[in-house]
Formats: sequence, structure tokens, C-alpha cells
Amino acid sequence: MTPTLDDIEAAARRLDGIAVRTTLLSSPALDAVTDGHIRLKCETLQRTGSFKFRGAYNAVSSLTPEQGRNGVVATSSGNHAQGVAAAASILGYRSTIVMPADAPKLKIEGTRRLGGDIILYDRANEDRDAIAANIIARTGGVLIHPFNDRNVIAGQGTVGLEISADCEATGFSVEAVLVPCSGGGFSSGVNLAMTARGTGARTYVVEPAGFDDYGRSLAAGSPQRNPALSGSICDALLAPTPGAISFEINNRLGAGALTVTDREVLEAMAFAFRTLKLVVEPGGAVALAALLSGRFDARGRNVVVVLSGGNVDPAMMMTALASPPSGLGV
Amino acid sequence: MTPTLDDIEAAARRLDGIAVRTTLLSSPALDAVTDGHIRLKCETLQRTGSFKFRGAYNAVSSLTPEQGRNGVVATSSGNHAQGVAAAASILGYRSTIVMPADAPKLKIEGTRRLGGDIILYDRANEDRDAIAANIIARTGGVLIHPFNDRNVIAGQGTVGLEISADCEATGFSVEAVLVPCSGGGFSSGVNLAMTARGTGARTYVVEPAGFDDYGRSLAAGSPQRNPALSGSICDALLAPTPGAISFEINNRLGAGALTVTDREVLEAMAFAFRTLKLVVEPGGAVALAALLSGRFDARGRNVVVVLSGGNVDPAMMMTALASPPSGLGV
Repeated sequence: MTPTLDDIEAAARRLDGIAVRTTLLSSPALDAVTDGHIRLKCETLQRTGSFKFRGAYNAVSSLTPEQGRNGVVATSSGNHAQGVAAAASILGYRSTIVMPADAPKLKIEGTRRLGGDIILYDRANEDRDAIAANIIARTGGVLIHPFNDRNVIAGQGTVGLEISADCEATGFSVEAVLVPCSGGGFSSGVNLAMTARGTGARTYVVEPAGFDDYGRSLAAGSPQRNPALSGSICDALLAPTPGAISFEINNRLGAGALTVTDREVLEAMAFAFRTLKLVVEPGGAVALAALLSGRFDARGRNVVVVLSGGNVDPAMMMTALASPPSGLGV
Repeated sequence: MTPTLDDIEAAARRLDGIAVRTTLLSSPALDAVTDGHIRLKCETLQRTGSFKFRGAYNAVSSLTPEQGRNGVVATSSGNHAQGVAAAASILGYRSTIVMPADAPKLKIEGTRRLGGDIILYDRANEDRDAIAANIIARTGGVLIHPFNDRNVIAGQGTVGLEISADCEATGFSVEAVLVPCSGGGFSSGVNLAMTARGTGARTYVVEPAGFDDYGRSLAAGSPQRNPALSGSICDALLAPTPGAISFEINNRLGAGALTVTDREVLEAMAFAFRTLKLVVEPGGAVALAALLSGRFDARGRNVVVVLSGGNVDPAMMMTALASPPSGLGV
């Protein structure tokens, strides 16, 4: 079940020429504000606007034509949705995506435009897994899980390979990598790749306050659950409990954990817009928020911060920009 | 007066480790929409949010301590302003910047935060050059012209060196490069560098409709003027006539010219936000607008598009995002 470095390297070969090889950006303004040496891994610039395309494409392209014959099925608030829809379209399969009705409009429209058949459900009163199971029973489609899947984790892990390669190529001795975290598929893939590559960096999962199941699970040494299913602006980071595969990896490799408030997330989004000139969605900005809020002390350190997604509705960005600049520099 | 490749290479050495070496991004969505092979040179990610830092730093760092003793002076609606203020601060000089009172707030605040002393003037009733001349007469400061300056053009030309190097490294045989244009310092520097490097690419200047003095000048073979001094959302691209040095270069090297409407610029800004996840200001988006509007036909061609700046007020971005998505893809 657990992916290996070989799986991640195989994923990198599958994604070569299909996914965008995103670069590590640096920003003198960000270094000045944090008094650290920061590199930004901008998965906002990835196909479909988030890292999710990597895992989705790796998983869908691993299917035999026979397996994919009846299409693929996914549950997602929008980034995995777009990743799976795009991957299925590229590979010539049908996709059915179960999405909450309150998902950001941009994500629903994007999924549709990428060729996904969308089933909307009521987050408060319906069980998305049951809906997906029904679809699969009826159609014979294959479920592509958003995080608890060996091939999905291996695909996300290619981000770790790229970070490791770029740090080595530029002589950047990375000490920590901060990764937005929901079910942990992304952070565990990155952790696995960077550990296997011997970077010596510690991986930190970053979660919204109140949805810190992953951090509490790491502290307890066993999976914990969030008390609520909604209530943060970070729509992409609301998985109720860590995925079993990702938790085994992150627990074994000693991942750290950080939480940030919605207010800190909005300030990070505004900083990204005003100063970095990057569009980042709430869930994609939590690692940057941990850095800018000082919850992660980067002073004098070499840190990679992952911006994991940029699929944000204009109204949410306006909420972030409505506050006056926080004086975090230009 | 006219810079040479040697000047541009010297500028690159001065800027090494000071300016951000911005990368060439690719976007499968953009390639799909244009049916071309597009690379984006994102000077939005440059220090101070625009390419202007390059020329400003190269010019200011070329001063002897004696020359810089009384500070530097610049006139600018905001990007050259921030570039000069940042360069002067880094090098330990004072800077005085003459800016129109209706400049974007983000640019005025940014210039102040970067250490510039700001003199606001009324675009309709005051002459900024006279104000700057007065300051220089009083203080003994040195004028850093926004475009008609050998060192400024050489600094901007480093963008052309980077494009050439990255295209060569990735086997991208670039046929055309589209550059936003006001006084022509940027486009002429890029043209000079890419021609000297033997890329074989043609440089196109891109201007807002009604402010196409540069294109008309190239067509006439002699400098023409704009009828108006204001009236486009592209606040950065309102220079009344081509700079003498830049015009000699672009005319000699056979630059092409394109114009775009404000409506096309807003659509390009919205596409950049929604699909590319990049924040681009109006003047910075004209080359992308020429591409997306079809005014430049990229079908089957290898094209580099320069995003020259990202210093946009939230309200202007909201104007761009207020229209429904134009169906330009995800």
C-alpha cells in the first residue's frame, strides 16, 4: 500500500511533459519580512491550478484500459475534482465528480470545463462517499481517492523530487518544508521523496485552526478526528481525519505540525496578491500564513514553502484584500 | 548613447544576486487557448513587482559615490518609481520621486515604503519634467530617466539575455517576443539582447489603443506623438512619444507593433488571475492581451510573452473580474 521512492520516480516519468514542472521562486521582499531564506514552490502554476493534477494523472494513467472502461469517479471540493477531470479527459476516460454544492464557483466551473460530469451534494445532510459508492455500483467506474491511494501519493511526491533537485542545483540547503495539509497525501509524498533524496529537511504539515486533526494525530501517535466538517475558509483542507497511508509515512518520518487562523490565511493571501503577485486560494496559503504569522520561525533558516493551489473566487480574494496592508513589506 | 551587448552583459553582472532571475513559465491552458507554444516571462515576480528595478538598479549603481551624493530623482507613475526607490535604498542614496496624484495607490505606497520621498503632481495641470528640473537645481540630485538612458536600457535588456538563455537551454526556438511598450526602453533592450544572441526572434512592441505613438513612429520611420496624455487604464504605458535611443534601436532592428483595447486588457488580466494564477497590472498585461485577443496570431508558433508588471490596485482587478469568464479555458 505504501508508495516507495521507485513509485514516485515512476510517477515523475509519467508526468514528464504532461504536468508543469513548477519552479522554486524566491522573493527578496519575503526574505526581508521573515529574516529567512525562503523558496516558494508554486503549485498554483500547475495544470488545473493545484498540485492535485499530479496525483490524479498518475493514478488515472496507471489504470488498464479495461479498468478505465467505465470511467473514473472522485469526491472533492474542487482541486482533486479538476485534477481527475483533466487527467481523465487527456487519457480519454469519462469522469464523474461528487462535489459539495457550496464549493467555490471557479472550481465547479473548472471541473465542468475540463470534462467532468458533476454531481452536487449537500455537505450538511448527505454522505459523499455513499453517493460515490452508488455511482460506482451503477456504472462500474473506478474510485480515485483524493489522498488514501498509493498512486495519488506517489504523484504528489513528484513535488518533493523537484524541490530536492532544485535545491541541490542551486546550493540551497533546505532545512524545512511547509506543506498545506488535509488528508496528508501531498505532505506524505513530499516527505517521502525529500527524505529519500537525503535533503535533511523536516516536513511540516500546516492546517487551519479547528481542523488540526493531522497535527493532533501526529502528537497522539494515532489518527484523531476533527470535531466539525465545515467552518473554515480553507475549503480544500477539511478532511475529517488523516489518510491511513499518509499518516503511517508522516508519523514514521517525524513530520512537524502547525496551525493557522483564517485571519492569518487572509493576510497571507493579501501578501501574495500585493507583494508576490501570485493568486493563492485559502487552503493553498496556509503554509505561507504559518511563515508570515511567525508561527514558524524562519529567522536565519532555509525554508521551502509550498503554495498548493490558486483556485479562488474573486469575492474571497476581495475579502482578503479588504483589510489594509499589514505592513509586511513590498 | 546607444547601449551595446557589452553594456547589457555588464548590467547582468551588476544585477546578479540582486534582481530576481525570473523564469519562463509555460501553461498548457494558454497553449490550448492560443493553439501556440507560449512562454511567459514573468517580470511581475521581479523585485518591486516590475522589470523596472533592473534598469533603475543598473543606472543608480553606475553612479560614482560623488555623483550619487545628493541623491537621485525620477519621474514615474509608479513602476520606475519603485525601482529607483529600491535601488537607491539598497545603494545608500536618497531618492525623490515625482508621481502623478492619480497613480495607483499600491504604487505610491510601495514607493514610500521602499524609501522614496514622493512629490505628487496634477497630471492635467503640471509639468513633471519641470518639477524634477526644479528639484535637481535645488538639491544637485541626478535624474534617472525612465527610458531614455543607456544604463536603464541596458538593465532592461537583461530580460532579453535571460529569455535567450532559457529558450536555448530548453530547445525552444523562439520566433516572436511580445513586450509591453511605453517609451520603449524595455522593448529596445530586449530586442538588442535577443538579436545579439542570434535568437532569430522578432520583437513586437504592444501598446494601448489611442497611445500607439510607438507603432505609428515605427510605421512612419520617425517619432510621432500621442494626441492625449491620459485616458487608458494602462497607467504605466502613457509616455507621449518614443525615447530617442530606444527608437533608433527598435527602428533599426525592425520591431513589429500591436495595439490592444482596454477591454482586451481587462480580459487578459482576468485570464491571468483565473487561469494562470498571476496578478498582472493593466500595462503589464497588454502583450498577453494581444495574444488572447488574436491580434497576434500565435497558431503553431513559438512565442514569448512578457508580463511586465503586477502593481495593480484591488479595485482595478475587481473591474477585470466583474465580467463573466470569457470561456478562454482553465
